Amino acid sequence: MSDEFARIARYFAPLAATFPGAYGLTDDAASFGLAHGEQAVVTTDAVVAGVHFIGDEPPGLIARKALRVNLSDLAAKGARPLGYTLAAVLPQAIDDAWLEAFAAGLAADQAEYGVPLIGGDTVATAGPLTLSITALGVVAGAMVRRAGARPGDRVYVSGTVGDAALGLAALRGRLAGLGAAARGFLVDRYQLPQPRLALGRALAPHVSAALDVSDGLVADLGHIAACSGVAAVIEQARVPLSAAATAAVAADPAAYQEVLGGGDDYELLFTASQEKHDIIVKLASAAATPVTVIGAIVAGDGAGSAPGAIIVRDRDGRDVTPAAGGYRHF
Amino acid sequence: MSDEFARIARYFAPLAATFPGAYGLTDDAASFGLAHGEQAVVTTDAVVAGVHFIGDEPPGLIARKALRVNLSDLAAKGARPLGYTLAAVLPQAIDDAWLEAFAAGLAADQAEYGVPLIGGDTVATAGPLTLSITALGVVAGAMVRRAGARPGDRVYVSGTVGDAALGLAALRGRLAGLGAAARGFLVDRYQLPQPRLALGRALAPHVSAALDVSDGLVADLGHIAACSGVAAVIEQARVPLSAAATAAVAADPAAYQEVLGGGDDYELLFTASQEKHDIIVKLASAAATPVTVIGAIVAGDGAGSAPGAIIVRDRDGRDVTPAAGGYRHF
Repeated sequence: MSDEFARIARYFAPLAATFPGAYGLTDDAASFGLAHGEQAVVTTDAVVAGVHFIGDEPPGLIARKALRVNLSDLAAKGARPLGYTLAAVLPQAIDDAWLEAFAAGLAADQAEYGVPLIGGDTVATAGPLTLSITALGVVAGAMVRRAGARPGDRVYVSGTVGDAALGLAALRGRLAGLGAAARGFLVDRYQLPQPRLALGRALAPHVSAALDVSDGLVADLGHIAACSGVAAVIEQARVPLSAAATAAVAADPAAYQEVLGGGDDYELLFTASQEKHDIIVKLASAAATPVTVIGAIVAGDGAGSAPGAIIVRDRDGRDVTPAAGGYRHF
Repeated sequence: MSDEFARIARYFAPLAATFPGAYGLTDDAASFGLAHGEQAVVTTDAVVAGVHFIGDEPPGLIARKALRVNLSDLAAKGARPLGYTLAAVLPQAIDDAWLEAFAAGLAADQAEYGVPLIGGDTVATAGPLTLSITALGVVAGAMVRRAGARPGDRVYVSGTVGDAALGLAALRGRLAGLGAAARGFLVDRYQLPQPRLALGRALAPHVSAALDVSDGLVADLGHIAACSGVAAVIEQARVPLSAAATAAVAADPAAYQEVLGGGDDYELLFTASQEKHDIIVKLASAAATPVTVIGAIVAGDGAGSAPGAIIVRDRDGRDVTPAAGGYRHF
C-alpha cells in the first residue's frame, strides 16, 4: 500500500522505541544477544478474523489477544519475553482510526508485560484480518518441555478452566439464561487471555512438563501425555471452575463439555513430582495466581492408558472421559 | 481445521528434523543458543496471494519465494541462517497434493540454504493464501545496518537490476515482443529470487551499509541514504542489466522505468569505502556473484542532495532522476 512506510513510522515504530536492536523499525531485521547460559525461545501463532475472533471486536482487543496467545506460549515454556515481530495482513477498509486503536492495544500490553515490538511487515489485502506474531523469549538454561511428565507426577492447572469456551458460546447466542455479570466475565476471558508469565517463570525449575491450554483441557493434557510417553487421570471434581462457569453449567448442564473440551483458556497446565508440591503452592501464591491439582500422571502401558491417553473420573471413580475431538475453532 | 495436527506431522515436521531445538514441532516453541559474541538476527516478511504473487503458481515455487525473501534479508545483514518459523494461512480448498508440493519446495530450499523449519502455525480460512515467515540468523559481532554509509563510499549492487519487475510485467501481458528465452529468464527472476547469502556473509566485515533490493533500486538506495543521513548519485550507465532486460528495454524503452523503480530483485545493495574495493571484488568472485559499482555516496547537505536524496545521472552527467514513487505491488 502506498502509505505503508508512513503507517509503520506512525503507528508501529513507537512500539519499538525501547528495544535498541529494533533500530526503530527502519532496518531489514532486528538483532539481539543472549547472556552466557541463556537460550532463546521462539513461538509463532497466527490469528485470523472469522476463525480465532469474530472480527468486529474493538481493534485494541484483537491486537492484545493476538499478542497474548503468543506470550502465553512463552509463559508455559518458562521464558521471559524479549520481543515480538508482527506480520499484519490488513483489509483495505482499515483506516487510521482503526490502526491507532490497534497500536494502542499493543502499547498497553507491551507496558503490562514488558515486551517490545522488534520488527514486522504490513500488507493491505482484500482478505480477512490476519495477524501472525512471532514472540521471542529467554530462558536461563533449558526451555520447559511438553515431554518430561513421569508416572506419579501431579497434574496442575492455573486459574479456572472452561471460561473462554463458555464466553465464546455466550457470544454465539448460547447460555441465554446467564446473568450479565457472569456473561461479561466469560466473554472477557475469551477475548482477553491472561498469559501467566510470572507464574511460568517461577515454576520453570520445578515442573516436569508444561504447556498452555489452547486446544482444551483434555486435548492439551493429551499432548503432554503423548510427548512424555505416559497417560493421565483427571479427577473431574477437582477441575477448578469460576463462579461464572459454575452458573453457566448450572443453567445449561450440556455446557459442561466446554469445560473439558473447550479451548482458549491460556491457563498453564503442568506436571510436577509430588515433592515439589509445597514450593509450587508457595510460588503460585507469590505470583498471585491460583493453581489446582486436578489429577495425576500414570504409566502409559495398560488397556485404556496407552501413551497419550487421558481418563476423566467423576467423584465416584467412574470413567466419564468425553469422546475424542476436543476444541474446534468456529 | 480438524486435520491440522495430522498435516503438521506429515508435511511440516519432517522439515524440522535437523534442528534439535524444534522438538519435531511437537512443543509450543523452539529454542536455541548463541555462541559467545554472536548476535541473533530476526526478520519477518509476509507474502499474500494477489499481492506478492499471483496465486496459481506451482505451490513449491510459492513456498520457495516466501522463504527466499526472508533469507535475502538475512543475506543483506550478513547473517548465517539458523531457522525459520512459518505461519501458513491456507484457503480451505488446499488439498494434500498441494501441501505435499508446497513442503517439497521448502525442503529443496532448506537443503540449498541450510535452514530448517523450527516452528509455526497453520490455519484454514476462506481468505487468500498468506504465508508469514520469520527467519532467524546469526552474526558474529554486529549486524550490518542500513545506517552507516558515508560520503565518498562507493555504491554497489550484486547481480543484475530490474529483471524481477520486467518478469512481472511480462506475466501481466506486457513486453509482448520479447523472445521466449528472455521472457522465461525474467519471469524466473521474479518468481524465484536468489538470496545472496554467501556474498552477504563474506562482505559483512567490509561494507558500511547494506540491504536487499525489494522496493526498487532508487527507493532502496534512498532507504540507505535516509538512514545514514547522506545522499547518493547513481550513474545510470553503470546499472547492470541482464541480456534479457536489455532486450526487453530495447523492445519497449518505457520499460526502463522498471529497472530503476521496479522491486523484487532481492539483490544486495551496499556501500563501502574506496579502500575496500579490491577485497570486495575478490570476495564477490569467490562467491561467484558479480558486483558492480553503480555510484557514490555524497553529503546530504545541499540543494537536491538532502539526506535520503538520490540523484540519477546519465552518461552526459544530466540529471535523469525518475519521479518519486518507486515500486508498487500489484
